[in-house]
Amino acid sequence: MILTVTLNTALDVTYRVDRLRPHGSNRVRAKAERAGGKGVNVARVLRALGREAVVTGFAGGTAGAALRRELAEAGLPERLLPIAGETRRTVAVVDESAGDTTLLLEPGPTVPAEDWERMLHHLGRLLPGAAAVVLSGSLPPGVPEDAYGRLVRLAHDHGVPAVVDADGAALRAALAAGPDLVKPNADELAAATGLADPAAAAAALLDGGAAAVVASLGPDGLIASTPQGSWRARPPRPLAGNPTGAGDAAVAALTLGLVDATPWPQRLAEAVALSAAAVRAPLAGDFDPDVHRRLRPLVDVRPLHPPRSA
Amino acid sequence: MILTVTLNTALDVTYRVDRLRPHGSNRVRAKAERAGGKGVNVARVLRALGREAVVTGFAGGTAGAALRRELAEAGLPERLLPIAGETRRTVAVVDESAGDTTLLLEPGPTVPAEDWERMLHHLGRLLPGAAAVVLSGSLPPGVPEDAYGRLVRLAHDHGVPAVVDADGAALRAALAAGPDLVKPNADELAAATGLADPAAAAAALLDGGAAAVVASLGPDGLIASTPQGSWRARPPRPLAGNPTGAGDAAVAALTLGLVDATPWPQRLAEAVALSAAAVRAPLAGDFDPDVHRRLRPLVDVRPLHPPRSA
Repeated sequence: MILTVTLNTALDVTYRVDRLRPHGSNRVRAKAERAGGKGVNVARVLRALGREAVVTGFAGGTAGAALRRELAEAGLPERLLPIAGETRRTVAVVDESAGDTTLLLEPGPTVPAEDWERMLHHLGRLLPGAAAVVLSGSLPPGVPEDAYGRLVRLAHDHGVPAVVDADGAALRAALAAGPDLVKPNADELAAATGLADPAAAAAALLDGGAAAVVASLGPDGLIASTPQGSWRARPPRPLAGNPTGAGDAAVAALTLGLVDATPWPQRLAEAVALSAAAVRAPLAGDFDPDVHRRLRPLVDVRPLHPPRSA
Repeated sequence: MILTVTLNTALDVTYRVDRLRPHGSNRVRAKAERAGGKGVNVARVLRALGREAVVTGFAGGTAGAALRRELAEAGLPERLLPIAGETRRTVAVVDESAGDTTLLLEPGPTVPAEDWERMLHHLGRLLPGAAAVVLSGSLPPGVPEDAYGRLVRLAHDHGVPAVVDADGAALRAALAAGPDLVKPNADELAAATGLADPAAAAAALLDGGAAAVVASLGPDGLIASTPQGSWRARPPRPLAGNPTGAGDAAVAALTLGLVDATPWPQRLAEAVALSAAAVRAPLAGDFDPDVHRRLRPLVDVRPLHPPRSA
């Protein structure tokens, strides 16, 4: 079982409008609600690949209840911890004529200190059954900045490898604890290191404490910096579509590669193919299985440097 | 007790953003939720005036539950009828820098025929305790187009006067049943009659079956067409602010005038003052009591025609 931790879960709401009239009145044609947050998307991808995943994090209020209901309907097992606060909603207003989306992101609920302590105990009970733990997304207000550092250490205390998909202070705090993999995107990588060159920046995060670094470069694929070597993995061509959730699909593939000890080039090819397949699906957490199958043998994986001395 | 019927209730959600970026990503700074729908606003105004009001209509799902909770917190008694569908939300995105609002209006839940029949029985039990009934707002899908006509007749069967605030087909169907008052706005009045002149259009609705017609003309005040005479009532000066809920405040004042048998000129002055006071309050259903008190003696009420023969 792979445990995905989403401390700042969300109920993702999609509104479809014919044409968005800013500062006017807009009739919503269709509405959909779905459990969201990066770790939830990772779990959804893992489940679609036939692997066991369990979702945890905080959930509260009516949005939290709707989120749990949707996870149950989707057959995604969850061990979410109830909190008194109301889980945030994200509202995606899809403009059918412009073909783009306006996002409205509610702030997360404030998590009291005692709920954070409860989460540590809760994870202490869940981790013994996990092959890996994925720590994804932003931290809600109230959770300490070094939360991911503490969770990486907790995972390692239980002999469980930890994958971190975070940015800013949360990513920096995780590095010090030696996560088994960090997966920033290009902007997060540059912001965390101050380096414009992705390969140099990824190497800097490796030096900073991560056991492996894979950065997602959008339509350009991935770059990996590991003690076994550095690679660049590219899709055969950039794909147009919905980039939300593409990074989460890459995290799912990379976590499976870690659990299954797949060789790095194969791991990266799988991550690029799954990520591109996610771009071709309209909702975060979904992917197009045909695109996935078709692209996997076509991903171009090349070493960037000779392997470091082991 | 005044009974307000809102068949298409809503949970009104307000998002405050620094500056709305259409087609971009927007962090919501503050969020508020409140029970909404025109009849709910009317009841809120009546309660603030120290009068007893009871809210009814349909409510369902998590939004319906949140709506009921907020009514309880506000001390507004409700006898909402539960339905299986999810009550709609309206999302008002307030752009703090532009000072305006983008509205996203979800469609209402479809009301099954058996729930509409249940509502008729439910109102049959509530009407004997009511001094008047207010029928406000749009009809949710599934409710017959002549719903307000049927409800006006039901009220009259119980000897209860009925006030209708509706437009289009719902307003036309109500007219045939002889409502005691209809309160269209200028656009609804023109659309219902095809007449550009508000005084002629109001007189046409009177001929169409309404016992009295008061049309709200926005910052220009009200126009009334009744068997006792026709009047124009104007605020001393137009007030800038939030027009949402101003019509509902006018309906609250006009319904009280009906119940208390206040002379028409006094009734109209009160409606204009309360409506202007609602414009000065940020949320629909609220009004500024100082503006209300100060404006009441300053409203200019003039007869339009000599009274019709009684």
